[in-house]
Amino acid sequence: MEEVVVERPDDYEVAEPQNVHLTLEPFRFYSGSIEGNTVLIILNTPIGSLPIHKLWNCTSVHICADGGANRLYYSFLNDAERDRYIPEFIVGDLDSLREEVKQYYQRNGTVILPQYTQYSTDFMKAIEVAILVHSGGKEKLYKPINEDDGISQLVGNYDEGVPFTAYVAGGIGGRFDQTFHSISQLYALASDHSHIRLFFVSESDLVFLVPAGTTYVKYESKKLFNNIEPVPKLGLLPFGNRVVLNTKGLKYDVENWVSQVGGNVSTSNGVAGTTGFIVNTSDNIVINVEISSKAKGT
Amino acid sequence: MEEVVVERPDDYEVAEPQNVHLTLEPFRFYSGSIEGNTVLIILNTPIGSLPIHKLWNCTSVHICADGGANRLYYSFLNDAERDRYIPEFIVGDLDSLREEVKQYYQRNGTVILPQYTQYSTDFMKAIEVAILVHSGGKEKLYKPINEDDGISQLVGNYDEGVPFTAYVAGGIGGRFDQTFHSISQLYALASDHSHIRLFFVSESDLVFLVPAGTTYVKYESKKLFNNIEPVPKLGLLPFGNRVVLNTKGLKYDVENWVSQVGGNVSTSNGVAGTTGFIVNTSDNIVINVEISSKAKGT
Repeated sequence: MEEVVVERPDDYEVAEPQNVHLTLEPFRFYSGSIEGNTVLIILNTPIGSLPIHKLWNCTSVHICADGGANRLYYSFLNDAERDRYIPEFIVGDLDSLREEVKQYYQRNGTVILPQYTQYSTDFMKAIEVAILVHSGGKEKLYKPINEDDGISQLVGNYDEGVPFTAYVAGGIGGRFDQTFHSISQLYALASDHSHIRLFFVSESDLVFLVPAGTTYVKYESKKLFNNIEPVPKLGLLPFGNRVVLNTKGLKYDVENWVSQVGGNVSTSNGVAGTTGFIVNTSDNIVINVEISSKAKGT
Repeated sequence: MEEVVVERPDDYEVAEPQNVHLTLEPFRFYSGSIEGNTVLIILNTPIGSLPIHKLWNCTSVHICADGGANRLYYSFLNDAERDRYIPEFIVGDLDSLREEVKQYYQRNGTVILPQYTQYSTDFMKAIEVAILVHSGGKEKLYKPINEDDGISQLVGNYDEGVPFTAYVAGGIGGRFDQTFHSISQLYALASDHSHIRLFFVSESDLVFLVPAGTTYVKYESKKLFNNIEPVPKLGLLPFGNRVVLNTKGLKYDVENWVSQVGGNVSTSNGVAGTTGFIVNTSDNIVINVEISSKAKGT
């Protein structure tokens, strides 16, 4: 079939698709309301201008991956503020966690979970904690656990558990192999734990996986996640196999469009849909949406 | 064959491979000497702590992609400094180039090349200028050119020309779709213009493609590109197909190791080889090496 590219107006109304589809609402945390089980994972990368407090307030479990706890701790000017953001768990090989940070959070009730195995990253360990919390294994985290890879072993003992959404602060945009690791984890979870929905929040982008099939990305308004650009930039990024794409609601909508690394890739595209856009893809892809706010840190 | 991972000492001597191989020396610009034809392309992303002057001084042609010229211009405090770094070419749709920057460089002999087509990015246009320079078409750039896509048309009229190396300042680590575009261009050039060697320099990493086969990455000393970390971090990143990897000179050397996105990926690996390391891969991969210097900006 012929490949087609159609330029849309900056604001373009798109109705929810009629056929079977997945609905994603990655930007709900901006309005402070998220339905269902949600987790915030804070990685050891600069928090900078991330909307960390907004993310915190709309998530019900908060996990710091090792030095991610340092990032959280030093993002506050004083204990009065800091006291309001106490993570439930800190997990990792703890080679980065500072002593004063560890002691502060321990005093305030955080469970510190050393997991020394080098066969998994601190990020993967944080995901495993989140899985345990949502699969009936939460109380195990408050009892002694094998400090090498006990959590990983425990996860194997439980079934999938309830679906949940994890927002990840950091992991994209720093050292390049760490960024690739984050993306690789997105693909790994999509195949092994498809009931977990992962959204990475970087200083410039919200990054998530769109699975094979039709996905409707829904939001109240584009201004919610980007009040600077009338057409926030967007990319359709085939990290895995070659894909065939069909979209509705992008600045440059595509039909029967073949995309792969080294070939055609839709980067510097934009969000035109006023309250949502539709992506149909023949295989998993990653999407990034440019987020930007004059009051980002709040 | 069995997959093997071997941990090496922090400093590990590796001899140049005996079999047919490609030798890459991505870090030569740190010592100020590069053989052969070289280009510097400056993109419109923060120059920050990039070793931009070192890159400039060891490259023979300097091309700014649109707003990349702003980045260069504003990286200097005064014209006395600025005068010593005048790019030969500025190319792009010029929607970002500031008027005072344009006028300054024009006064100083820079050729400004408007290319308005939206079917190619400013980065791709800069690559095309570099190709023309090295394929006998350089003098055409000083005559009137169709301002839509004249350069792209001209490139089609010339043969491959001589091999050259392009250092790209920026393009990795900013907006995520731009990063993916950079990587996609690496793969595209490897397939269509394998005589062009591309090295991206970001604030944290040097990023390049290693083609299928055996590659020896050679350097005088690890301290040359990273005088902070004894074992600079490194990633083997399969953006394209699944690959089988064999390495020698990494902190965690692998043998017969299958790697793909969503599966096993060697990130947070490190450079152990004191003067080089060897990578054998069944298909093209991307490598990042952590660069860090106490005197980076110089």
